[in-house]
Amino acid sequence: MKRSQIRQAQERTAHILDLSGIVLTEDEIRHIEVAGFGLQQLDVQGLELVTYVNTDRYCAKELVLFPRQTCPEHLHPPVGNDPGKMETFRCRSGSVWLYVEGEAPGVIKAEIPVGSEAYFTVFHEIELLPGEQYTIEPGIKHWFQAGDQGAVVSEFSSTSRDEFDIFTDPRIERMPRIEEDE
Amino acid sequence: MKRSQIRQAQERTAHILDLSGIVLTEDEIRHIEVAGFGLQQLDVQGLELVTYVNTDRYCAKELVLFPRQTCPEHLHPPVGNDPGKMETFRCRSGSVWLYVEGEAPGVIKAEIPVGSEAYFTVFHEIELLPGEQYTIEPGIKHWFQAGDQGAVVSEFSSTSRDEFDIFTDPRIERMPRIEEDE
Repeated sequence: MKRSQIRQAQERTAHILDLSGIVLTEDEIRHIEVAGFGLQQLDVQGLELVTYVNTDRYCAKELVLFPRQTCPEHLHPPVGNDPGKMETFRCRSGSVWLYVEGEAPGVIKAEIPVGSEAYFTVFHEIELLPGEQYTIEPGIKHWFQAGDQGAVVSEFSSTSRDEFDIFTDPRIERMPRIEEDE
Repeated sequence: MKRSQIRQAQERTAHILDLSGIVLTEDEIRHIEVAGFGLQQLDVQGLELVTYVNTDRYCAKELVLFPRQTCPEHLHPPVGNDPGKMETFRCRSGSVWLYVEGEAPGVIKAEIPVGSEAYFTVFHEIELLPGEQYTIEPGIKHWFQAGDQGAVVSEFSSTSRDEFDIFTDPRIERMPRIEEDE
């Protein structure tokens, strides 16, 4: 992603958090993580993150999704002595559809990103509205998409080691490559 | 504490969270924890808590303090294989003065509760405004007091085992005794 595109997404994210009553420091705004997953379609498949704390014991983040933006399917594998990341998603504003392994409805409410259909394989649907939350056990494949208003989701979890996440889509690069603008 | 006093404090807490843009479910509102520490002066020494999740790996809560309300001095000791609770306080609204072990200013900004002076012994002062946070290592004595507007503080931590907390004030009972109204 280009540096200018990241800056734009950071500003949009800070504005959404501000509207949700979530206050960030100037330094936190500058460090908002914009994950495009190397797919070059941030508004369709992407995620914006603010990591408040990530110790060897616990982690807390805010996740921001633009309207209908999708975080692609992945799982958190065991890493060393760690059985894999366990995470609780709590919707703060907007709405999100979360999909995990398990029984699926006939038709899901999210729209699978066109051209990536093969890489979405779990469809047990959980709708999270503000104040609702769901805990994902380690090793469970999951993906999520915001509703038409976007979403702010607090993530409480064990230690994050994002670089070990396993994505279903082999084209995905979790860690960003940033191109400076010309 | 009387059941009616708890209900009143729960309603006040839910209102403060609502003003801060934090949405709770009806069930969460009914289960807001009102900790009076057995001291019979909730507005002076007390704390209101919403526990979102507490697994064997991590915990997340909202802490609410009424104006100038104080959470008395305590520490989180090792429990079994756990080296003791590590916790990150992030101020969401209002303001809070947090005191931990270490160098103290000549005069602190908080007001020590009258009659309990002997049980406040650490005075390294950290002021937290919205968007600011501080991580408390295990085994470190700490206490905190809200400013004149009260405070909402998100707590991200390792597993909570509140029943093992060690308070400086020997009169304190961490777990509540609820009296039904006549």
